[in-house]
Amino acid sequence: MLRQPETKYRPVVPVALPDRTWPNQVITHPPIWLSTDLRDGNQALIEPMSVERKLRIFELLVAIGFKEIEVAFPAASQTDFEFVRKLIEEERIPEDVTIQVLTQAREDLIRRTFEALQGAARAIVHVYNATSPLFRRVVFQRERQRTIELAVTAARLMRSLAAAHPETEWRFQYSPETFTATELDFARDICNAVLTVWQPTLERKAIINLPATVEVATPNIFADQVEWMHRHLAYREQVVLSVHNHNDRGSGIGAAELAQMAGADRVEGCLFGNGERTGNVDLVTLALNLYTQGIHPGLDFSRINEVARTVEECTQLPIHPRHPYVGDLVFTAFSGSHQDAIRKGLAAQQPGTPWEVPYLPLDPTDVGRTYESVVRVNSQSGKGGIAFLLEQDYQLSLPRRLQIEFSRVVQQAMDEQGREMTSADLWQLFEQEYLQATAPFKYVLHHWRDDVVQPSMMAAVELEDSPITIEGNGNGPIDAFVHALNLGVRVHHYEERSLSQGSEADAIACVEIATDWLTSPVHGVGIHSSIVTASLLAVLSAVNRGLGRLPSEQRQQLLAQAYS
Amino acid sequence: MLRQPETKYRPVVPVALPDRTWPNQVITHPPIWLSTDLRDGNQALIEPMSVERKLRIFELLVAIGFKEIEVAFPAASQTDFEFVRKLIEEERIPEDVTIQVLTQAREDLIRRTFEALQGAARAIVHVYNATSPLFRRVVFQRERQRTIELAVTAARLMRSLAAAHPETEWRFQYSPETFTATELDFARDICNAVLTVWQPTLERKAIINLPATVEVATPNIFADQVEWMHRHLAYREQVVLSVHNHNDRGSGIGAAELAQMAGADRVEGCLFGNGERTGNVDLVTLALNLYTQGIHPGLDFSRINEVARTVEECTQLPIHPRHPYVGDLVFTAFSGSHQDAIRKGLAAQQPGTPWEVPYLPLDPTDVGRTYESVVRVNSQSGKGGIAFLLEQDYQLSLPRRLQIEFSRVVQQAMDEQGREMTSADLWQLFEQEYLQATAPFKYVLHHWRDDVVQPSMMAAVELEDSPITIEGNGNGPIDAFVHALNLGVRVHHYEERSLSQGSEADAIACVEIATDWLTSPVHGVGIHSSIVTASLLAVLSAVNRGLGRLPSEQRQQLLAQAYS
Repeated sequence: MLRQPETKYRPVVPVALPDRTWPNQVITHPPIWLSTDLRDGNQALIEPMSVERKLRIFELLVAIGFKEIEVAFPAASQTDFEFVRKLIEEERIPEDVTIQVLTQAREDLIRRTFEALQGAARAIVHVYNATSPLFRRVVFQRERQRTIELAVTAARLMRSLAAAHPETEWRFQYSPETFTATELDFARDICNAVLTVWQPTLERKAIINLPATVEVATPNIFADQVEWMHRHLAYREQVVLSVHNHNDRGSGIGAAELAQMAGADRVEGCLFGNGERTGNVDLVTLALNLYTQGIHPGLDFSRINEVARTVEECTQLPIHPRHPYVGDLVFTAFSGSHQDAIRKGLAAQQPGTPWEVPYLPLDPTDVGRTYESVVRVNSQSGKGGIAFLLEQDYQLSLPRRLQIEFSRVVQQAMDEQGREMTSADLWQLFEQEYLQATAPFKYVLHHWRDDVVQPSMMAAVELEDSPITIEGNGNGPIDAFVHALNLGVRVHHYEERSLSQGSEADAIACVEIATDWLTSPVHGVGIHSSIVTASLLAVLSAVNRGLGRLPSEQRQQLLAQAYS
Repeated sequence: MLRQPETKYRPVVPVALPDRTWPNQVITHPPIWLSTDLRDGNQALIEPMSVERKLRIFELLVAIGFKEIEVAFPAASQTDFEFVRKLIEEERIPEDVTIQVLTQAREDLIRRTFEALQGAARAIVHVYNATSPLFRRVVFQRERQRTIELAVTAARLMRSLAAAHPETEWRFQYSPETFTATELDFARDICNAVLTVWQPTLERKAIINLPATVEVATPNIFADQVEWMHRHLAYREQVVLSVHNHNDRGSGIGAAELAQMAGADRVEGCLFGNGERTGNVDLVTLALNLYTQGIHPGLDFSRINEVARTVEECTQLPIHPRHPYVGDLVFTAFSGSHQDAIRKGLAAQQPGTPWEVPYLPLDPTDVGRTYESVVRVNSQSGKGGIAFLLEQDYQLSLPRRLQIEFSRVVQQAMDEQGREMTSADLWQLFEQEYLQATAPFKYVLHHWRDDVVQPSMMAAVELEDSPITIEGNGNGPIDAFVHALNLGVRVHHYEERSLSQGSEADAIACVEIATDWLTSPVHGVGIHSSIVTASLLAVLSAVNRGLGRLPSEQRQQLLAQAYS
């Protein structure tokens, strides 16, 4: 049995703010966004990202539209230091983007941080020290006055180092760590002391960032704390008030939203809520929450699948199937009454009128997704679903998104036939849809050379019954084959397993691909005793199915371009 | 680029409630909990649960301490109907537990619902109809008055059917669907009309449930709506005011908490936030949020791993590694400064004093978990972590929780040796820790008979160097072997893969087990060319490692009991 918590845990003391105004406010514009995927998000990974992966995420963030990106804690890690140097020396930072780096308030670390930034056109130096009583007592054994002196000394050093490098447009950011557990009057005093050193102006505002490093209370209490600071901060006009929420109580999103109503101008967080422990607040959900309220977030998530798969690959962390807006199951309706209501709602939806479809707060096509109604082939049995029947009778265990896609195919077939399907019917349909998708591309043979320098793939295929030979390089056979195909195909997901036991068993390969000429991803499946051949068959199955979605004129044009 | 949302989405209209009181309230006691895992949770699964799985979840919910459990929508599905009959006829409902069933407000469905409940000692009949303008217009084309008549007719029928079966202690629940999108005055009118039919008393309260079927606004707006209803509901003293939150904007938790401050007495939700689309509000997080505020939730999550693995198995949905309190990464610190602060905090923590450890809002041992500090073997390289090195140089790809467990072993070895480890060092340590854990149980041989009636395992092992033969039955070889061992071992997770390609390749099996005699799960690993032998070796590795954690006296007693 759970112990008696009243003897062990202390409740948070609420803020005395009876004249709070935030509950009457409504969010009318997006905050300034700061992505900390490459810092807070990265340091919380089992395997931190390599420089190559950090660069992929940096470019993704820029493409989404982030203008402020915390890229590193350069004084804490050599990789981080080198990453900052690489961005600056290779001139990879667009003119409208400012990088931010984090440092503790220690002289050696601050000096090293400025070293990392040498030659940057613009930079935000983000300094923090421990201000909460627990930290003051347990971790650092400092008192209030010494804690303020430490922050002020750091602030002065930053000012003088910045003055020595006028070629960079410097901005400063200060975080009292952890704000949520710090006495409000002390948080005000230390922030104001730092601001007094920095002397911010309207042209060069300072950033005061309030980190809920650990979420410790209901979201309204965080909002009260932010409104209190908003009212008591010196130089308020010359300050950008920022919040940095975590999600330890599962309410980081709500806390960041109420904080904006309470006066916050800026939100720090990560894509899909990555970050220490329970994660930072999720910027994708925050942005799309604004979007469904008629406010453009200023970030582009119109191709959310692409963003999702890239982040999953770089962080090696999954996005939950129930993640708002992005999870695999979010635009999927299982219950008959929901499917019915959605169908009626979609039918009644007039172009140009406000979006009003039951159970779908967002039009999935706005983020490059589709609505799927998943049918239960024989719902009376309670375990007669498509995936169950195929697994039980044909040992087919399919990836979740492929299951959802195939359910649509089944739905259509059932609508046409008007009867329930047996597992043999399902298998036949599966074969027809995925395994017999052999036009326009039909597999013939391949040679795979795993050279150390440049692994390469030569494949013979038939294109509309004419034999052609294609060649490409890549890290592995699928990568090289996709390059050889020359159709701009990106592999989102790949899964392969043996269909039975023993060395002569066939392998089944499932791939999910995306391309610029398709609005949503498409799956393909291949079965073969060689795992390489199975995966090439799967790629061709997906490509053929994707090409089948295009008008024939566009298809011909695409193929002519690729193989002229 | 994302389209212009201002032309497509309408913002929610806030509630005019300047004299709201909820922002000054603090939650001081737990709500009445209603689990809808077996209804809302189940209907949203790709494969709905079988009767056996539903029963496992029902028993889990009872063991956790739920007193109200929505078990089915009996008029909508034969499986659901039969499940309710099974619970009643086999007398599986404890005396202090009340089952709840859902029905639409239609005569045939209500009659069928009462049929399903025949003979129940206690039951809550939960009726709903569509009340929001979108539903009234798009889906059902009814007007206000007709919508109220429909609800009132249903309420009358329920009253008369209940009166005909006085052997059951009936309670009634009404939900205006979807409340969050319904005009408040209309929600009040329809709820009050239903209550007038039901005439609730202090002894037999009615339940008015306010579903945020789709989350459409920031959590403060839901709180305003709830406070408004709380003030305007007739028979308020005779009503249990309930909320049913979903998570479409990622703030279901916050909304349910603010709703309690606004007057809600009861919360409906699911374990780990399962349910339609983005899920219902997560009752585990809500309960443990209370716990860390010094309030006992009245639910027992002291063995949260057990609960987590059972739910994952029954729903076939993963729990996200960053899920509050339960995710694999939540009690794991990666950053050196966090590890340092936690170490100091744990050292300073005195028995009997309030819990105050930086970055750990909850003592992990309260929920049967442990704190893990994950080391980076060579953090300078940025990709020199344990998992990376083992995968790169030894093709070892380990499950996440095993990675975290092993990192602790590495940490200890590094503390003792005081130097960085190469991948050869790591492999040696891995072998020693997992593959050479061959005492007291050492594998000799096995026979596995896959009979249709009763598959069985006979295994020869050495126990403290003495040969013994053990036998057991089970669905598969691991299941049967674990039964044969007779040590109360439950397998939480099993993963197996080939270490290289080709038919002669060795397979590596990793298992995670739990037992009543261990406070936290333990992992084991086996490598062998037969996948069955590899998995038995893995089970023995885990059992041996687990036994190694016990004082020798307890170990001897346990073995004597099992093999007397």
